[in-house]
Amino acid sequence: MATDRSLTVGIDLGGTNTRVGAFDAGMQLVASHSIPTRVTAGPQTCIEDMARITRALLRSINEEEYAADCVLGVGIGSPGPLNLRTGVLGFLPNFPGWDDFPLRDALAQATGLPVTLESDANAAAIAEWKLGAGKAAGLDSMAMLTLGTGVGSGLILEGRVWHGMFGMGGEVGHCIVESGGLLCGCGSRGCLEMYASGPGLMRLACAAAEGAEGTASLRKLVALPGGFTPLDVAELVDRENDAAARSAFERLGQYLGLGIASLINMLDLPLIIIGGGVSTAWPLFAPAMFRAVREHSVVYRLVAPSQFESRELDRTFIRRAELGSVAGLLGAGLLPRLASVQSATAAKNGTPTRIPEMAR
Amino acid sequence: MATDRSLTVGIDLGGTNTRVGAFDAGMQLVASHSIPTRVTAGPQTCIEDMARITRALLRSINEEEYAADCVLGVGIGSPGPLNLRTGVLGFLPNFPGWDDFPLRDALAQATGLPVTLESDANAAAIAEWKLGAGKAAGLDSMAMLTLGTGVGSGLILEGRVWHGMFGMGGEVGHCIVESGGLLCGCGSRGCLEMYASGPGLMRLACAAAEGAEGTASLRKLVALPGGFTPLDVAELVDRENDAAARSAFERLGQYLGLGIASLINMLDLPLIIIGGGVSTAWPLFAPAMFRAVREHSVVYRLVAPSQFESRELDRTFIRRAELGSVAGLLGAGLLPRLASVQSATAAKNGTPTRIPEMAR
Repeated sequence: MATDRSLTVGIDLGGTNTRVGAFDAGMQLVASHSIPTRVTAGPQTCIEDMARITRALLRSINEEEYAADCVLGVGIGSPGPLNLRTGVLGFLPNFPGWDDFPLRDALAQATGLPVTLESDANAAAIAEWKLGAGKAAGLDSMAMLTLGTGVGSGLILEGRVWHGMFGMGGEVGHCIVESGGLLCGCGSRGCLEMYASGPGLMRLACAAAEGAEGTASLRKLVALPGGFTPLDVAELVDRENDAAARSAFERLGQYLGLGIASLINMLDLPLIIIGGGVSTAWPLFAPAMFRAVREHSVVYRLVAPSQFESRELDRTFIRRAELGSVAGLLGAGLLPRLASVQSATAAKNGTPTRIPEMAR
Repeated sequence: MATDRSLTVGIDLGGTNTRVGAFDAGMQLVASHSIPTRVTAGPQTCIEDMARITRALLRSINEEEYAADCVLGVGIGSPGPLNLRTGVLGFLPNFPGWDDFPLRDALAQATGLPVTLESDANAAAIAEWKLGAGKAAGLDSMAMLTLGTGVGSGLILEGRVWHGMFGMGGEVGHCIVESGGLLCGCGSRGCLEMYASGPGLMRLACAAAEGAEGTASLRKLVALPGGFTPLDVAELVDRENDAAARSAFERLGQYLGLGIASLINMLDLPLIIIGGGVSTAWPLFAPAMFRAVREHSVVYRLVAPSQFESRELDRTFIRRAELGSVAGLLGAGLLPRLASVQSATAAKNGTPTRIPEMAR
């Protein structure tokens, strides 16, 4: 049997940079290139940038090793909200003027390749599921939460990305964890995203600095004229074992655990992966997160060997992501190989996402 | 083509009564029988009761009209928690001594028929989906919440009942709607079930009677030595337009809306059906529920014709159930005809739930 020499192209569209990678059949990165996203130049210009880089990447590939003329397709991960049925962008706060742009069709036209579109959160979830923290378990259902500027989420249910009615399924970041809490950009109050994201941790740090448990070090940090980052707060714990900085991460863990408990209670999932920049502080928030999940999820507690038969996977695993910031690009590159993970909803509505075996 | 003269048997196992029904291919009830559930006599005795009644029902059926010897199978809806992969009961608070009973296999042995097991909440959801409030829409995904002694829930995702990892998926009643709120039987605090169930409404009525908005009529009602019911509170609104009684239902609606908002944000579902005894007070809580959903669900608000292309179903529909208390029995009777709604998880784990075309 001949070796599979086919390639896929993955594109990770970000508000700052656009990364393009070519992957072989074993999902090894063969070539990659990153350029600034010219957001203000408009979506069509950026599409042309992506197409040009894709062509250049494929030309650069050693034709003796890879069949650069056998590209299965392009996968792209984009910020949401998206309509995954139609491939059209919704209202993206960080991409002014891009509303209603038909991203999928425009990219297919510019590259001449079949294009599979996912949200960036779903692309990261797919990568962690198949190649990262979920790889060894071999499960067909899981959720991934990405703790970054917001709290993104991707749900994989029985081997397929859950898209929901309009391709917006899996907004776990807008699950309510504090009734009557902080006003969220979505118009609701007390959303998980307000507490378990990077900005959320910074708010919790400010509250801890001003509260009864406040320390001089944390007060000094949050008052810095140049601002501070979640990493600064984590370093304060590492360096000085600062109790107030520690309590900010513990509060984040509690809120995160509450959101995960609701998710487990609703869906009884075997695996939840936590990624994103904030997740690098895992040792600081994970114990409080596990305590909160145990306290608030009857399903998490019930599903234990004493309750039912024992098996390797006796309860929901909650694990740290493994792929870091490359997850989105890897997931995008996987999309053309995983036509089956596409929601049946998309296919049924006349927008086929199944990629032909060979293309171009 | 010959008419389908096959039958199915549905069993609705309740803590008080067990109902058995025989249904024709059009899901018309051909014969039914109800007996008290002899909980304290133990599960094996109750299984024998069910098998005896099933045999008697099938013997009573007019053989010229129906092929009583062509029974596709038995469907049973049982209180949870259940392990739907193994067909074994978990710890059921109202069924002392029934823990770990292999309900599905015992019933199959006693009747000699293939048995499909579901939770009672899932059975009701299936009935409303196929024959009730979801029938006209013809959707393949929805959720049903049953507001009764607790808040039960069933999720249908892309044409199949969502069972989760251990057949416990869809415990929406334990979604947290009041952080640090009332202590729930599940060990968590502020679960939807503590506010949107019958007992929840009674607690909200007591709180309203004692609060600033309390009225003499409501105070008198909640102090009645014989106790009161949610229906009594509803009648106080109907009869006297009692403001405090009205506010209790509005609070219930707010909490219910908050839980539904988290559900929509997580899963972007096209249809949510509200059933159970409390749902008969729909006009009293629905306006507050819709307000809360709109306020708290960005997905509910975003998915509107102005955002994406218009279509008949432009946002999540939230509807009152149509089948009343017969939903559980109907859903159980449907199970043998809907082998495909069974979770693939169950089948993959060596417990086949697909019913042969003909049996007995």
